[in-house]
Amino acid sequence: MRISELADLTGVSVATIKYYVREGLLSPGRKLSERLADYDDRHVRRLRLLRVLRDVGAVPVGALKALVDATQDRSATVHDMFGKACDALRVETAVPASRDDHTRALADQIVDQAGWTKVRPDAPERDHLADIIKVILDSGLSTDPEGAAAYLPLVDAIAAYELDQIDAGQDRETMMEQMVLGQVVLGEFLLCLRRLAHEHHSALRFAERR
Amino acid sequence: MRISELADLTGVSVATIKYYVREGLLSPGRKLSERLADYDDRHVRRLRLLRVLRDVGAVPVGALKALVDATQDRSATVHDMFGKACDALRVETAVPASRDDHTRALADQIVDQAGWTKVRPDAPERDHLADIIKVILDSGLSTDPEGAAAYLPLVDAIAAYELDQIDAGQDRETMMEQMVLGQVVLGEFLLCLRRLAHEHHSALRFAERR
Repeated sequence: MRISELADLTGVSVATIKYYVREGLLSPGRKLSERLADYDDRHVRRLRLLRVLRDVGAVPVGALKALVDATQDRSATVHDMFGKACDALRVETAVPASRDDHTRALADQIVDQAGWTKVRPDAPERDHLADIIKVILDSGLSTDPEGAAAYLPLVDAIAAYELDQIDAGQDRETMMEQMVLGQVVLGEFLLCLRRLAHEHHSALRFAERR
Repeated sequence: MRISELADLTGVSVATIKYYVREGLLSPGRKLSERLADYDDRHVRRLRLLRVLRDVGAVPVGALKALVDATQDRSATVHDMFGKACDALRVETAVPASRDDHTRALADQIVDQAGWTKVRPDAPERDHLADIIKVILDSGLSTDPEGAAAYLPLVDAIAAYELDQIDAGQDRETMMEQMVLGQVVLGEFLLCLRRLAHEHHSALRFAERR
């Protein structure tokens, strides 16, 4: 298809498509003549991914580039590729880096308790978990980190379900697209469902309480 | 306690404490003399809440004011108070308002399927869910909104657990503080656990796949 058709189909402007090609985020179309190129379904898929990451994830272009680079290193396993993508997607979180040895140990304990044996001992997400635990303890919301136990099987089931949706029979690019979209969009989906469930459960418990 | 002790205990500066009092976010201390006031545990709790909302939730002062106002309308039920707090906490989401009749109907269908009968028919969160469904469908991530079925019992269990942590025997202010902290901090906690679980499940499935 022509670039104008590609723009119509994906909702990404021609100028932005050309920008993504220049930045190496989108492969160039197959040249038909000096001024005409032909684009196919892979371009459509990639553009839809870039659009979602821009609109929903507010992912900066530098991070998009890191995602594409991770896809192109064919010596890496799909798992390593996913890891690099997650690092690139890590938005600067608002949680202050306030962890200490105690909360870092609690974070490791939670990962152990969940049975997530494959999480690297130095995964940055462990530090982030420790920061969040510090906020929870400091806020007085809970003095009992054991409370996490209730979440673990539920979160495990959600993550396992999401990874099961990624079809290992597909090419690396497609697997990457599915993983990244899942990470960003299904995270929003999950929090939205949770707010709806909060409204329901709040009504069940507190509709009479003044 | 003196204001300087309050500042030390909560990590909120004296200047910010005075600002919160001026803005009506914190009740004034009990006057001991023209220049001295006495603060108690309620001030500590409220300041810790305000600090978390500022640091983690990046909640603007206007929204904090709406939260406090919701606490003070004593004719409202706790459920109504929680609803107002949720409205105030709704951050401007990056998901574009792209819903249509079809996705709005799918959103209602998901809420029905979950059994969340107490969610208001005109709850803004239903529209937001429709926007997210539109992004999912447009991105090609899934053509099957039935996929949501797998999430519903898990999210329902998480939300029910969270609401069960709120002790109905406490005063309104404390219940509000617990609800707001849960909404903001446990949402971060949940997403963090999910990323850890993703790393584990990705390793189980794709550590060999190139």
